[in-house]
Amino acid sequence: MSRPTEGKAYPFVHVRRIRWGESDPARIVYTARYLDFAMDAIEAFFNDRLGASFYEFNVDHGCGTPFVHVELDFRSPLTPRETLETEVRLARLGGSSLTFAVAGRAGERLCYEGKLVCAFVDTTDAKMKPIPVPPQFRTLLEPDAAFTAA
Amino acid sequence: MSRPTEGKAYPFVHVRRIRWGESDPARIVYTARYLDFAMDAIEAFFNDRLGASFYEFNVDHGCGTPFVHVELDFRSPLTPRETLETEVRLARLGGSSLTFAVAGRAGERLCYEGKLVCAFVDTTDAKMKPIPVPPQFRTLLEPDAAFTAA
Amino acid sequence: MSRPTEGKAYPFVHVRRIRWGESDPARIVYTARYLDFAMDAIEAFFNDRLGASFYEFNVDHGCGTPFVHVELDFRSPLTPRETLETEVRLARLGGSSLTFAVAGRAGERLCYEGKLVCAFVDTTDAKMKPIPVPPQFRTLLEPDAAFTAA
Amino acid sequence: MSRPTEGKAYPFVHVRRIRWGESDPARIVYTARYLDFAMDAIEAFFNDRLGASFYEFNVDHGCGTPFVHVELDFRSPLTPRETLETEVRLARLGGSSLTFAVAGRAGERLCYEGKLVCAFVDTTDAKMKPIPVPPQFRTLLEPDAAFTAA
Repeated sequence: MSRPTEGKAYPFVHVRRIRWGESDPARIVYTARYLDFAMDAIEAFFNDRLGASFYEFNVDHGCGTPFVHVELDFRSPLTPRETLETEVRLARLGGSSLTFAVAGRAGERLCYEGKLVCAFVDTTDAKMKPIPVPPQFRTLLEPDAAFTAA
Repeated sequence: MSRPTEGKAYPFVHVRRIRWGESDPARIVYTARYLDFAMDAIEAFFNDRLGASFYEFNVDHGCGTPFVHVELDFRSPLTPRETLETEVRLARLGGSSLTFAVAGRAGERLCYEGKLVCAFVDTTDAKMKPIPVPPQFRTLLEPDAAFTAA
Repeated sequence: MSRPTEGKAYPFVHVRRIRWGESDPARIVYTARYLDFAMDAIEAFFNDRLGASFYEFNVDHGCGTPFVHVELDFRSPLTPRETLETEVRLARLGGSSLTFAVAGRAGERLCYEGKLVCAFVDTTDAKMKPIPVPPQFRTLLEPDAAFTAA
Repeated sequence: MSRPTEGKAYPFVHVRRIRWGESDPARIVYTARYLDFAMDAIEAFFNDRLGASFYEFNVDHGCGTPFVHVELDFRSPLTPRETLETEVRLARLGGSSLTFAVAGRAGERLCYEGKLVCAFVDTTDAKMKPIPVPPQFRTLLEPDAAFTAA
């Protein structure tokens, strides 16, 4: 169950070209865009690992994953000359939360690192009550947790 | 009914400071941000004139106003040194659509102009069926239509 | 000179997954994001056809391509379940301007269409004086102009 | 020097209406937008306290303030029905860095908290060498540091 899933790469890596409009008059990527980059990489991780997007969770399954904490350290500036590769590791598969460790590189150069925590909630409940990670998703996430622990 | 409403200014003007992160490495506002500026100004117009936001229309009234057409002409670049004032005029109060004419200035200098068209639809209908402009909103919009025609 | 360049596909197509944060509480893509999609597709076209990004034009070549006009027609809503393919055609290769025709589809379904015009300017000049399309870029753009005309 | 400056309010508070396009299909503000909110509030703090924008620092003074660390805790969701007030406190006035503590509220309800750290650098130097906080800015920031310490 916790073995790597066939056809999946570990850790998950999300690749994107840096765009003109993501850069500011200092001619480097604007600070606030890094949280977009980290969230985009985690969204792509969900699509790849769970076969369902944030959208499908919410609209089809009545299950949300709001983020409760994010932190980012900026190591080296990025420009639109570069392609960013953000590595997404599942640092902790909790009872009702997930902790992600992300690291973004341009080639070998580390550009940013971060930690992001989301919680599973019942979106059909007005108070957004926390719920356990649904069992079918837990099974699909175990290989990533095992890879991180190894 | 079509006289200016007391306490309202005509035309409606939305004011915002230009921000660092809205500007690009050419050190002027990035092209795509102008549609955000125009949409923000129209959203503020809805709040002011109708006393209800896009959000309240959708979530509380089951009534949406998707945009079907936008066009923008860029007249002069903007930088974060400046404050943008976007004037919103109701160019046409149609049976089930609204046409807005916007003009954004920094001081006396015209920076951009645009035309944006939205349609009223029933959001409780899966096909987003067009509906007439609801009568209570039409009444509230007539002074702006009259001001433009004058 | 105007024959398709080997290894290039005509017309140019830019592919992207629709993201959660690009969608609004009506559960479809927010209006203002379409201009980002169109601009991203044109930026990717520049990278592919000219081998240089907006950033390299500006920072390395002192040559800018500010947009002077954009217009978009929204044909059918998009959601994060979908992948958007935006086709970029060079509708007109002018003396000092380029006119792009874009069309975005999710599968066979047309979602939006647009026309965007940019002008070449000398960014080392404070007044951003218009300049002819640089000859080396004109040569590289001719196959796209010929493809559109065919 | 460290007394509150006449005509300034302590702590600094930045007010903004939540917009439709900042909210996602879960009908609450999208996670990544909170870093935009915190950065916008700090940018407004710079304008108010130092009489110079990020843009003027960079373009006119050759002095940048890149952020090296950000962290955010999400306490309660926000919707476009609400107005967000973000309080900006100068938690530490270091030798060449500033640490900000931010707290965003909708009425009395705490929505998010955060800590953000920026460093002063010489932008005319290709390596972005750290520099001391320029003395004229230090003087202007001391009342905020004293207010936080009180």
